[in-house]
Amino acid sequence: MVRKLAVVGATGAVGQIVLEEIQHQKLAYDELKLLASERSAGKKVKVGDQELTVELLEPGAFDGIDLVIASTPDEVAAECVPWAVEAGAIVVDESAFYRMQEDVPLVIPEVNPDAALGHKGIIASPNCSTTQMVVALKPLLDAAGLSKVVVSTYQAVSGAGLAAQEELLRNTTSKLNGSPASAKMFQHDIALNLIPQIGSEKQDGFTSEEIKMVRETHKIFGDNTISVNATCIRVPVLVGHSESIYCETKEPLELQRVLELFRNAPGVTLIDDLGSKSYPMPADCEGKPDVFVGRVRKDLDNPCGINFWCVSDNLRKGAATNAVQIGKLLSEQSDVSAG
Amino acid sequence: MVRKLAVVGATGAVGQIVLEEIQHQKLAYDELKLLASERSAGKKVKVGDQELTVELLEPGAFDGIDLVIASTPDEVAAECVPWAVEAGAIVVDESAFYRMQEDVPLVIPEVNPDAALGHKGIIASPNCSTTQMVVALKPLLDAAGLSKVVVSTYQAVSGAGLAAQEELLRNTTSKLNGSPASAKMFQHDIALNLIPQIGSEKQDGFTSEEIKMVRETHKIFGDNTISVNATCIRVPVLVGHSESIYCETKEPLELQRVLELFRNAPGVTLIDDLGSKSYPMPADCEGKPDVFVGRVRKDLDNPCGINFWCVSDNLRKGAATNAVQIGKLLSEQSDVSAG
Repeated sequence: MVRKLAVVGATGAVGQIVLEEIQHQKLAYDELKLLASERSAGKKVKVGDQELTVELLEPGAFDGIDLVIASTPDEVAAECVPWAVEAGAIVVDESAFYRMQEDVPLVIPEVNPDAALGHKGIIASPNCSTTQMVVALKPLLDAAGLSKVVVSTYQAVSGAGLAAQEELLRNTTSKLNGSPASAKMFQHDIALNLIPQIGSEKQDGFTSEEIKMVRETHKIFGDNTISVNATCIRVPVLVGHSESIYCETKEPLELQRVLELFRNAPGVTLIDDLGSKSYPMPADCEGKPDVFVGRVRKDLDNPCGINFWCVSDNLRKGAATNAVQIGKLLSEQSDVSAG
Repeated sequence: MVRKLAVVGATGAVGQIVLEEIQHQKLAYDELKLLASERSAGKKVKVGDQELTVELLEPGAFDGIDLVIASTPDEVAAECVPWAVEAGAIVVDESAFYRMQEDVPLVIPEVNPDAALGHKGIIASPNCSTTQMVVALKPLLDAAGLSKVVVSTYQAVSGAGLAAQEELLRNTTSKLNGSPASAKMFQHDIALNLIPQIGSEKQDGFTSEEIKMVRETHKIFGDNTISVNATCIRVPVLVGHSESIYCETKEPLELQRVLELFRNAPGVTLIDDLGSKSYPMPADCEGKPDVFVGRVRKDLDNPCGINFWCVSDNLRKGAATNAVQIGKLLSEQSDVSAG
């Protein structure tokens, strides 16, 4: 039970789902405060039976708040999260800004819940692409160790916000009508196209998104020796990130055992029957909290190699669902309860 | 110089480009005959300055023909290619039907031109996804050997024909309008979606398309020891297959050397400048004969690991362009010339 809960970025694509997930996961609170930037402050938002007015995100906004769930761009998190921490709140932050800081736990409740205990006021929720991959890899790691991951992503535009979804729809309409389209949210026109760049140039030719998948995986698993090769691609899909994952375990696993591990893994739903055309697809996974896994195949040569396909709603488990799960975990650890 | 050339499937998506490529590559002939099924026989088709009438594809149609370029479904190739061979013609066949037969060379002119010499009347052109990957991998194989390939594809709908392109456009319009859409050419609605199945279930959970990428790569490179893990995904793109490729060479290669190899490889065009947002994208590669490579990165851990992104027009180098190149190669080897 949380006494005073604040949701920052309450009117954004992820923030709206945070409010839904708070109800859905029954994260109990006495009082709820919605915060957003000037553009959205003053708006009315319905939460359950209540109608709340969004308040301005400013230094004094966190007085008396116990728990904050923040869904904002990195630069907003950089500024406002310290306000909350200084006011004595614990912050679950969905931005990338604090994730790699040494004293900030990076938490997926199904994977490393204990890491949350060591927080110093901020707990980070991982990148959407990392989260679904790590949830799926966790049972394989536990059963047989993990030495190598090669992942190619097929990322929906909603990772870039509501305006990006509108741009995909608008540009697709233009393309179907043969009219010219301009790209604002993306580097190039994404309609009926693929863009092999997510984020900015980071190191050794990799983008920031690709490096996040490497470093965040290492941090969450607490193991820097796992080799991760990531290629992140934007695809013309509205919601739902997909990933083609190849991994090598340290010990060989039979296919039936791999399927059983996925079937029993927390947060994972296995859909794998090629004969009946059953496998995860973004169109089917939108709005669901699970990480969906399918197309599971053993490497034809290496007994330690496994291929699979992984889809999850990037706004849910990749963001809002995970953040609220962290909030729930904290409230159960009772360090944010009124006691 | 070919005396009598026949193009089978001349009115299809690939056949139309075969006719273009014959002009473009200057595959010289004395006489050109266009053949197609009953549905298309009788149609007039413009080829250069000539207007030709499409004739019926039937057993006697190949009398006197020296060279055939056939772009048909597998079942049509199974029936009609033997008619041509019996009539004494050499057939360049783009279907999958003959590719893995022992006495049929599987040829990419930049990669294994000499294999064409050993033909017994049929030369097969590889699967579109295989062709672009093998063209890109060839310089790495030659320079440092190749032990492992992990490939995830992003395949355009045009691989499934003109009707598939119409279905993507129609279903996308329906989705934008909120109307229901049905899938005929694909297993599911492909509009703003991804389908992780191309072809039918083949073996060990892999699809026929995925197994083609394994076996055809082995046959073209003449090396069954290269481990190939393929995951083939249909994406809502009209034309142009993309591939995220991870490979391990036998000897380490420096990044600069890899870039130089790609820059000098026949058939490959390197576009690789992340800082200026330059990389191959299907929207830019449509209508071009090249295999485009970009986003080249070394594995952060394994000195023999290389990641890259590869895009090519699946109807061109993936089909028509390669088949006409084989025809051109044969005509230069002068075993189909009038002498």
